[in-house]
Amino acid sequence: MTSDEMAARLPDLERAAGGGLLHRRALLAGGALATGALALPSTAAVAGAVGPAQPESMRTPGAPFRGYGQPSRFEAEVARGILKPYGDLSPGAGISMTPLQNLSGTITPNGLFFNRSHNGVPDIDPAAHQILIHGLVERPLKFSMDALMRYPMVSQICFIECSGNSFFNSNLFPEPMQMPVGMIHGLVSAAEWTGIPLATLLDEAGVKPGAGWILAEGADAAGMSRSIPIDKALDDAMIALYQNGERIRPEQGYPVRLMLPGYEGNMSVKWLRRIKLTAQPTHTKDETSKYTDLMPDGKSRQFTYPMDVKSVITRPATGLAMQGPGFYEVSGLAWTGHGRIATVEISADGGASWAEAALSEPNLPHALVRFSLPWQWEGGPVVLMSRATDEKGNVQPTRANWSAQYAAGHLYHCNAIQSWSIAADGEIKNVYV
Amino acid sequence: MTSDEMAARLPDLERAAGGGLLHRRALLAGGALATGALALPSTAAVAGAVGPAQPESMRTPGAPFRGYGQPSRFEAEVARGILKPYGDLSPGAGISMTPLQNLSGTITPNGLFFNRSHNGVPDIDPAAHQILIHGLVERPLKFSMDALMRYPMVSQICFIECSGNSFFNSNLFPEPMQMPVGMIHGLVSAAEWTGIPLATLLDEAGVKPGAGWILAEGADAAGMSRSIPIDKALDDAMIALYQNGERIRPEQGYPVRLMLPGYEGNMSVKWLRRIKLTAQPTHTKDETSKYTDLMPDGKSRQFTYPMDVKSVITRPATGLAMQGPGFYEVSGLAWTGHGRIATVEISADGGASWAEAALSEPNLPHALVRFSLPWQWEGGPVVLMSRATDEKGNVQPTRANWSAQYAAGHLYHCNAIQSWSIAADGEIKNVYV
Repeated sequence: MTSDEMAARLPDLERAAGGGLLHRRALLAGGALATGALALPSTAAVAGAVGPAQPESMRTPGAPFRGYGQPSRFEAEVARGILKPYGDLSPGAGISMTPLQNLSGTITPNGLFFNRSHNGVPDIDPAAHQILIHGLVERPLKFSMDALMRYPMVSQICFIECSGNSFFNSNLFPEPMQMPVGMIHGLVSAAEWTGIPLATLLDEAGVKPGAGWILAEGADAAGMSRSIPIDKALDDAMIALYQNGERIRPEQGYPVRLMLPGYEGNMSVKWLRRIKLTAQPTHTKDETSKYTDLMPDGKSRQFTYPMDVKSVITRPATGLAMQGPGFYEVSGLAWTGHGRIATVEISADGGASWAEAALSEPNLPHALVRFSLPWQWEGGPVVLMSRATDEKGNVQPTRANWSAQYAAGHLYHCNAIQSWSIAADGEIKNVYV
Repeated sequence: MTSDEMAARLPDLERAAGGGLLHRRALLAGGALATGALALPSTAAVAGAVGPAQPESMRTPGAPFRGYGQPSRFEAEVARGILKPYGDLSPGAGISMTPLQNLSGTITPNGLFFNRSHNGVPDIDPAAHQILIHGLVERPLKFSMDALMRYPMVSQICFIECSGNSFFNSNLFPEPMQMPVGMIHGLVSAAEWTGIPLATLLDEAGVKPGAGWILAEGADAAGMSRSIPIDKALDDAMIALYQNGERIRPEQGYPVRLMLPGYEGNMSVKWLRRIKLTAQPTHTKDETSKYTDLMPDGKSRQFTYPMDVKSVITRPATGLAMQGPGFYEVSGLAWTGHGRIATVEISADGGASWAEAALSEPNLPHALVRFSLPWQWEGGPVVLMSRATDEKGNVQPTRANWSAQYAAGHLYHCNAIQSWSIAADGEIKNVYV
């Protein structure tokens, strides 16, 4: 039976769009399984068999206990992808990217959380580190890490996305680059962050009338610093101390960072040292010489905070191999800096038809959501795309529409629809559609 | 001003129970801060100061990028606590426990997730590993790990608790043991698990009439295996491949484990190799020689599945030091195998009065929930306790009531209320109240 013949046997309910996309409840409802129409990848076992011979792992005692665990040695290749634009001249300036092609779910493990550093990862002794809140406040205050540990804390699962994420698909690169999906889109990760509402500490210091902004300064060798509107600081900003339960990793700001849910990543200043309340933005080097948007009229737009609605298929995707025609799940991540994801649609025919994907629960604001859809790949060439819409009605743009908003060479805030072509031989490529 | 005088200045709204417990919204509402009545741990900075001198971390480039990250060297002591009852005779038989006193939030980082192994951690090559589904099925099926990767997956944040957790407070130990909270209660951890609903694979194999149970078998050198009712297998059981986004760690069952939300941990068989559908339970060694409950009448009760409603204060707790009188947050974890936590109450006067704690969001079924309450420690001796109630109305028992349900020496399923005494000098001890 060919896969076309198989697809023809599927109940209409289960065909959701062209290119073999099935309804998001196709397998969960059990219908397709009952018809036997799907080319599922399991193997029928010999009747009565009890499986493979007893493996070696059952005949020899296993490894002893470890105080701090690590991944299996068979996962040694699953690592962040590193780009150092200045090479060994400045080995700590660059990025390490989350290998999205190797991950699933919506949490990023701490060891694979992406990192953008401008001058390396500082090694900070928490016993010697303090945060100062000063400027337009009634009472300048200092907080040791021990003092912070005693304040009321909250937890929130949030993504962080570098505003330079997906720059390989931006106006810098008119032709699509070929690399694993994690090297294109892996400047986004998510964790459960736990810390103190910044509002609590600002209330204690006493915000003076006229304070319209804060300046957040890092203790790294780049002196990374950003201006943030006071409304955000008093709303959901957090002084974060924990990342997925343990103290924040050095690459993510140990011992303490700012966390601004939904805002471009560099504003959540790592290795946080001082917060100064000011009347106006400070126009630091990090918000004038970079992290601004080049507009078609030659001007630069400053202070673009929330990351826009976005999605990317991570399986199948570049960096992975197809296993031949038959059944697959199409799976990926969606997120928005404007709250919650409302819907994600998937196309397997280059945008001619779309089917609504299932979304993982809980669907939390400013978190990653995993979307998925069952798919019967019939073995011919297809173009897979995903398109997210958020609860504010923002829709992810085509690459052409995204690109036209900016000048040539612009790279920040790229949220264009990603298209993957799959050839008949199973090769997966990045394409601009 | 003494702390008594400070407490007297608090609005009534903010005093929630004896021993200095404040209302759960005391600080979030800003009221206590406005009165200046709380002995908060911050330090007033010298007016006009700009903070500590520029630290060394700003004058030297930081560390370069790493493919896989690790915690700060200043957190090197944060590790799982290891107990090997047979010592070096069987170094892989025992437990490693999550250091709850060092963590916050509700997710456990993969490196600190607890581990119970009966004969070590196997080293399994995923390319050679298969799962067989056989027994009372229409079609016995084999699944390679590559095949499993193509099936529809779901994600769920779930705790796993060893049924032997808290055995240091069980009937085995009539006098309270003194050790960090993680060594008493750290056989519970939580992660986002991602994998395939077991129901999908059982549907494909075709469950025969008369199949009432499954037998799940592990590929470890202990041949760990358990019987599970078919209703649970078809409900929310998962064939889990990912833990907090990355492939499951060796200690947690790499390359694949069973996941039974809410059930005692050992039933979520790790290093899963075979699932056999049977009419009756198999009565394996792991469900007859252990993991049974010694009753007062001398009989053993078998097959007690869900872990009961439970909570524990993790800060302040044994393993941590008080910093002197003043403001603290009381914080801990609650969970139940029966769905969601409904309420957690805290007492600071040994159970004489109770105040309702705040619960972290999202409050998910079969996940850990963090509870918290602001607290003004006046410096005298207190006994801190927490008491959880779940959505089914189950209430965490006192230790005396828990203990009376079982025979002397019984150790499993201990969910008794934990009491911490805090002396005037700040020493924290485990006490039976």
